Amino acid sequence: MNITILSGATSKCGEQWGVSPRTLVGDVVKTTLADAQIASSSIDALFIGNMLSSSLGSQDHLGAFFADELGLSVSAVKVEGACASGGLALHAAVLGLLSGMYKTVLVVGVEKMTDHKPEEVARALMGAGSDEEREAGATFPGLYALLARIHMNTYGTTEEDMAAVSVKNHFHASLTSHAQFPFPVTIAQVLSSPPIATPLKLLDCSPIGDGAAAVLLTTKPKRHGVVIAASTVSTDALGLHRRSVLTGLSATTRAAQKAFSLSGIAPADIAVAEVHDCFSIAEILAMEDIGFFKKGKVAASIREGITTLGGSGPIVNTSGGLKAGGHPIGATGVKQVVELFVQLSGKAGKRQVKDARVALAHNVGGSGATAVIHILKKY
Amino acid sequence: MNITILSGATSKCGEQWGVSPRTLVGDVVKTTLADAQIASSSIDALFIGNMLSSSLGSQDHLGAFFADELGLSVSAVKVEGACASGGLALHAAVLGLLSGMYKTVLVVGVEKMTDHKPEEVARALMGAGSDEEREAGATFPGLYALLARIHMNTYGTTEEDMAAVSVKNHFHASLTSHAQFPFPVTIAQVLSSPPIATPLKLLDCSPIGDGAAAVLLTTKPKRHGVVIAASTVSTDALGLHRRSVLTGLSATTRAAQKAFSLSGIAPADIAVAEVHDCFSIAEILAMEDIGFFKKGKVAASIREGITTLGGSGPIVNTSGGLKAGGHPIGATGVKQVVELFVQLSGKAGKRQVKDARVALAHNVGGSGATAVIHILKKY
Repeated sequence: MNITILSGATSKCGEQWGVSPRTLVGDVVKTTLADAQIASSSIDALFIGNMLSSSLGSQDHLGAFFADELGLSVSAVKVEGACASGGLALHAAVLGLLSGMYKTVLVVGVEKMTDHKPEEVARALMGAGSDEEREAGATFPGLYALLARIHMNTYGTTEEDMAAVSVKNHFHASLTSHAQFPFPVTIAQVLSSPPIATPLKLLDCSPIGDGAAAVLLTTKPKRHGVVIAASTVSTDALGLHRRSVLTGLSATTRAAQKAFSLSGIAPADIAVAEVHDCFSIAEILAMEDIGFFKKGKVAASIREGITTLGGSGPIVNTSGGLKAGGHPIGATGVKQVVELFVQLSGKAGKRQVKDARVALAHNVGGSGATAVIHILKKY
Repeated sequence: MNITILSGATSKCGEQWGVSPRTLVGDVVKTTLADAQIASSSIDALFIGNMLSSSLGSQDHLGAFFADELGLSVSAVKVEGACASGGLALHAAVLGLLSGMYKTVLVVGVEKMTDHKPEEVARALMGAGSDEEREAGATFPGLYALLARIHMNTYGTTEEDMAAVSVKNHFHASLTSHAQFPFPVTIAQVLSSPPIATPLKLLDCSPIGDGAAAVLLTTKPKRHGVVIAASTVSTDALGLHRRSVLTGLSATTRAAQKAFSLSGIAPADIAVAEVHDCFSIAEILAMEDIGFFKKGKVAASIREGITTLGGSGPIVNTSGGLKAGGHPIGATGVKQVVELFVQLSGKAGKRQVKDARVALAHNVGGSGATAVIHILKKY
């Protein structure tokens, strides 16, 4: 594939009461266009990743909404797949570029979640789950708690192992100003934080937040930069009760295998990765399902600091991940790729992974019914 | 473009209280796969066109939802752009095929609207409009009534002219069993039907309804069949108050010009068209904006029967259009293409347009902020 990432930007994530989606998106797009030194008139198509604009924002025409806001009259569309909406929007953009129909496209992920009561947000988020799960009163912390319990029973994973994920990601977040929680936490703090859905505690869970992210992609030839080497999607049963495997997310495995096969890149080549740690257990599952470590061997590698900045790598979630960087649903999949673009461009400052040349982004919808993988390469 | 339509199917449209979206989609997909004699395992990707699954159905993971239902674990995504969601899903599928990443893809449009109170549906539908329009209490009949008034004042279009659109489309609907209103109406009946938003009356308006449609597309070489010759999208300001032109929909004009330019096909080559007649005035605008007739000259051609079955053509809305065929929002853009595929395949029975070889589908979101054009060709 010959798709270059020209630029990208991420907003501050978190509670932004006074900031509208218009402003969130307007700001990241302005930075993205300025960085690439490209006028908005060069954009051939706009792909918006978003989950909750309908249920929380009463807006069901989001492509045209943001095209209008940005002064564009090009093809514009909202792409939705729960928490994987951002990754799916990027995948749709990649298809658009590879089709030859569009040469330069803008991908925007955005979510505005904090203007609503927590119960309304929790109900809206269950739109990512199955009817049966909704009717049973399940929530995503509860569903991931089930996955955590199975992993603990099968591989001996402990609450301390999961806490180590949060500790690592908070440490990384402490090195970036955009993170929702830019401060470190300790294993003891995670373990003593309030229980949410046992064995998951507050500090095992990613937060609700507002945010936006944008990337500008082109197929026009460039002499150097960062390219997308693979973009793949796979799906699985919506509800956990219909899955054949519960010790991991099969959709991740399938999407990752396809991405490695298409790009000729192997897990061992990846220097830096952003994986979907909506809950601490999810990062452990992701690391196994992508193939970075053998099943049951991830926990030790995290505890030993292999995936922490300065470790032997892959270095995982330098942005702070969803846990500490923030998880503005539709923005997340785009935000991950912005972080990797910054890393491969050598502009990550205090959180820079040295000599990073190949990177991987992993974005999940719901409890794993959708998985999206992007592999990025410096050239 | 080398994209062949292998098969397609449309459900009955209308109030289907006892039928779930699962069944609506399951049935059209079953027919579509059976007609193409293709197993679901041959499908590389699934594109779902839908607007209201979130606001009316609390489901925000519709790609994975239907992939799961259909037993697929492939790339699956929901594409949303208000009433143009179906056309946009088809466009996304075309990009996917042209990219080379997918060889055979399934496009499904679906909407379930009648399980809710009319006020809930009306509120949800305003998700296609702008904030300002929602805050002002505007509804789509009201917005199209404004467009109708401007057209009447500018070109002398009359209420009888608009009524003639409904009469034609009801006549066409009377020839198909799938139509929501398969019976003829007279000019007098339209003119004396209850006022909705003056000058639009009940029989100027398309109905609320449940429905689904599916098409199966492939890039694998075929010796004969129906191909997609162009697939284009354009956008415009979301709210009428921000548009520079109000005597037509600029997004339609831009999308149509691009489609004609890309395909080398001219408006005069089109034998049969499905245009987005959400209100009778919308068909008049569409005919002008696409370029079938000069501004202000469409009304006469409709009155004279040029676009009615048996006329000199193009024959417009043989399915009954949105007005009488039905307008299950997310399904509409797909349903239009199914009708044209049936026409170009020579299998339209009593409503067959003789020797039809080139066809055009026109799908609009909201009051014209999104327009999608597909041109189909028999070879």
